[in-house]
Amino acid sequence: MTFQGVKGTRDFYPEQMRERKKMFDLLRDIAKKYGFKEVEAPAIENFELIKAKSGEEIAQQMFMIEKRSDERIALRAELTPSMTRMFINKQKEIPKPVKWFCISRMWRYEAPQKGRLREFYQFDLETFGSDKPIADAEIIALAIDSLNSLGLKKEDIVIAISNRELLQGLLDNNNIKEIEKTMRIIDKKNKITEDEFKQELNYLNKQQFDSIIKFLNAETLDEVENLLNEKGKKALQDLKEVFSLLNIMGKSEYIKFSPEIARGLAYYTGTVFECFDRKKEFRAILGGGRYNNMIEQFGGQPCPATGFAMGDVVIELVLKKKKMWSEANEGVDYYIAPVNKEYINKSIEIANKLRLQNSVEIDLMNRKLAKQFSYADSIKAKKVVIVGDETKEGKVKIKELKSGKEQEIEIEKI
Amino acid sequence: MTFQGVKGTRDFYPEQMRERKKMFDLLRDIAKKYGFKEVEAPAIENFELIKAKSGEEIAQQMFMIEKRSDERIALRAELTPSMTRMFINKQKEIPKPVKWFCISRMWRYEAPQKGRLREFYQFDLETFGSDKPIADAEIIALAIDSLNSLGLKKEDIVIAISNRELLQGLLDNNNIKEIEKTMRIIDKKNKITEDEFKQELNYLNKQQFDSIIKFLNAETLDEVENLLNEKGKKALQDLKEVFSLLNIMGKSEYIKFSPEIARGLAYYTGTVFECFDRKKEFRAILGGGRYNNMIEQFGGQPCPATGFAMGDVVIELVLKKKKMWSEANEGVDYYIAPVNKEYINKSIEIANKLRLQNSVEIDLMNRKLAKQFSYADSIKAKKVVIVGDETKEGKVKIKELKSGKEQEIEIEKI
Repeated sequence: MTFQGVKGTRDFYPEQMRERKKMFDLLRDIAKKYGFKEVEAPAIENFELIKAKSGEEIAQQMFMIEKRSDERIALRAELTPSMTRMFINKQKEIPKPVKWFCISRMWRYEAPQKGRLREFYQFDLETFGSDKPIADAEIIALAIDSLNSLGLKKEDIVIAISNRELLQGLLDNNNIKEIEKTMRIIDKKNKITEDEFKQELNYLNKQQFDSIIKFLNAETLDEVENLLNEKGKKALQDLKEVFSLLNIMGKSEYIKFSPEIARGLAYYTGTVFECFDRKKEFRAILGGGRYNNMIEQFGGQPCPATGFAMGDVVIELVLKKKKMWSEANEGVDYYIAPVNKEYINKSIEIANKLRLQNSVEIDLMNRKLAKQFSYADSIKAKKVVIVGDETKEGKVKIKELKSGKEQEIEIEKI
Repeated sequence: MTFQGVKGTRDFYPEQMRERKKMFDLLRDIAKKYGFKEVEAPAIENFELIKAKSGEEIAQQMFMIEKRSDERIALRAELTPSMTRMFINKQKEIPKPVKWFCISRMWRYEAPQKGRLREFYQFDLETFGSDKPIADAEIIALAIDSLNSLGLKKEDIVIAISNRELLQGLLDNNNIKEIEKTMRIIDKKNKITEDEFKQELNYLNKQQFDSIIKFLNAETLDEVENLLNEKGKKALQDLKEVFSLLNIMGKSEYIKFSPEIARGLAYYTGTVFECFDRKKEFRAILGGGRYNNMIEQFGGQPCPATGFAMGDVVIELVLKKKKMWSEANEGVDYYIAPVNKEYINKSIEIANKLRLQNSVEIDLMNRKLAKQFSYADSIKAKKVVIVGDETKEGKVKIKELKSGKEQEIEIEKI
């Protein structure tokens, strides 16, 4: 009997880890260039915190810890509640805006499917303290730069942007009372047929339904203006500014007004956005938006906030599809091969010296030279240092494995 | 009401995160120089795996996931079981030795105390496939280099080394049958008085007791030789080779033969070691050793293994005590300050350009210049770029916050 990992989790062997880490370092670099600071929160949180955002039902999709005493603990499924908690605990003393990011793991207790696993990494960013469109534009630009840094260009991806208040303003303006229900149907429009869509909205009158269709078919911001109430028109102004700022930021070819984007119901309060591969072969690559009510709802002073999150599962699928993901084995710089046991001490001295600047392996198995070479080959060592009789004259042989070139060199000069 | 994190977990704000990340990067760098490759395993594992190493009782110290179906899942408390599982799954195809490391989080469901938290990071290294003393010596040297890289010198730390078979050989040689019990008492010798120690071992005869005392008081390897049976003498040879190799590796001033080190009972099979601060103010900083039976026990082909683990909690306490831990705020390179809304577009252009090489914040709040300066001060920005009327002549003012020096510069030349 051998053991397997938990379903929906992944083992990261060196090649997989290296590529993932490279991705995280690129994302980290972009976040820092925008002045975001890295933070980390616990992987386990009191369930009360999570419930405050998502309600009791969310427990069904989470890894809940077996209770002892009255602590009710869960493995986090997203970072925003924890970030918000951390922000509130420093809210008084910390200068605003606060710009934080985190690259870490989350967990969801559900059946794994394509693009959704039970354990995944997430790149998460939040800006606390600014209610201005420029704060939204900034994180969208950052999202685009992040994806750029991974190799994705304007031909590959598009950011669909809207504002939650538009849809709200449309429904209010058309006297539609079934807000939640209607939004939920609109949210899934792309996943159902036109007939089904019509059928599901059969509680609306013709004029209401036509307004929704007109709204959803709008390609420019100006087209929707007349369909909105005053609050919706105000939100439209904000959204126009987001677009105008993104144009100045040089992102016009990545962004698209997408009136159907709602991203859930209670959480977001303003700008909302999602990034897709242009062929729509995959789920959303990332998503985010403005959530101005959560801090107050969590017991803090009222404070606006905006952010986004990107999981590692979909982006990996996208990058693999585009051949931008390489799980190559990175060999060590040097493998030190004593020709026999007698030369181990000398080999250690050479390894010590080379390790100041290089990655170095040394024979740990007392193997014959031929076996050492085949090991050095298999681990893709760049050079093998052969430590033998030449050391008596202060020399070693160095062989480059790729070219097969071999030369004798003074130990002093390595 | 505001929310608090789970007891025994930590929130890492930017200053804390930065120092921790610096530490991890230093450790990572050393591991790579020794030819170790980074891997990662899931944070959640089937409890069967953990039980195979530690028995059913360990569930009492672990975060167990509330059961659904028949999956019994736990948050990992250490990495070795997962690493071993990963190794076994590739055991046939992967060239030996396999040298892996991981820097990640673990969880223990117990009451937090000084140096022990419920959630902690761990730097973990394993070498699979070599039964030679050089494999043990290598990871001990690596442990020392790691601590060196964090600033700890020979005056600060010592690695206490022994071999599990010595103690076993001593007890066998003295015909002591209560192996487990006796080892457990010896293991806690330093935590109890001499009288208590004697009292607890009252089932031994005088000659047996004296042998143990003689063994424990030994300062050199030669002193214990006569106290051991044949198997113990063989282990002593291995241990002598570990010391001799560590001397060649330049580590003689960091290591000490410490016959009392046993590190638990069933797990280790050969070399064992722990690192302490020399004043013994703290718990062990790291610990490890050889475990040649686990792979077979987990269902793999018999294969020797050696490794160590270092948590982040004790090392942080040690480094703080020695003033080698600095949670300084690292400011952004540039803060871009538009003098009023009219100059936001120009400011964005400048930010875009500077972000190619620097970390840059820009006003997200439409604040007056004075407020922007006080914010730039509070986030420790190095330079403030003031974007105003001078831009009409293609210029901006740049102020260095530390020196107060201000100069006008052409935008092209920034």
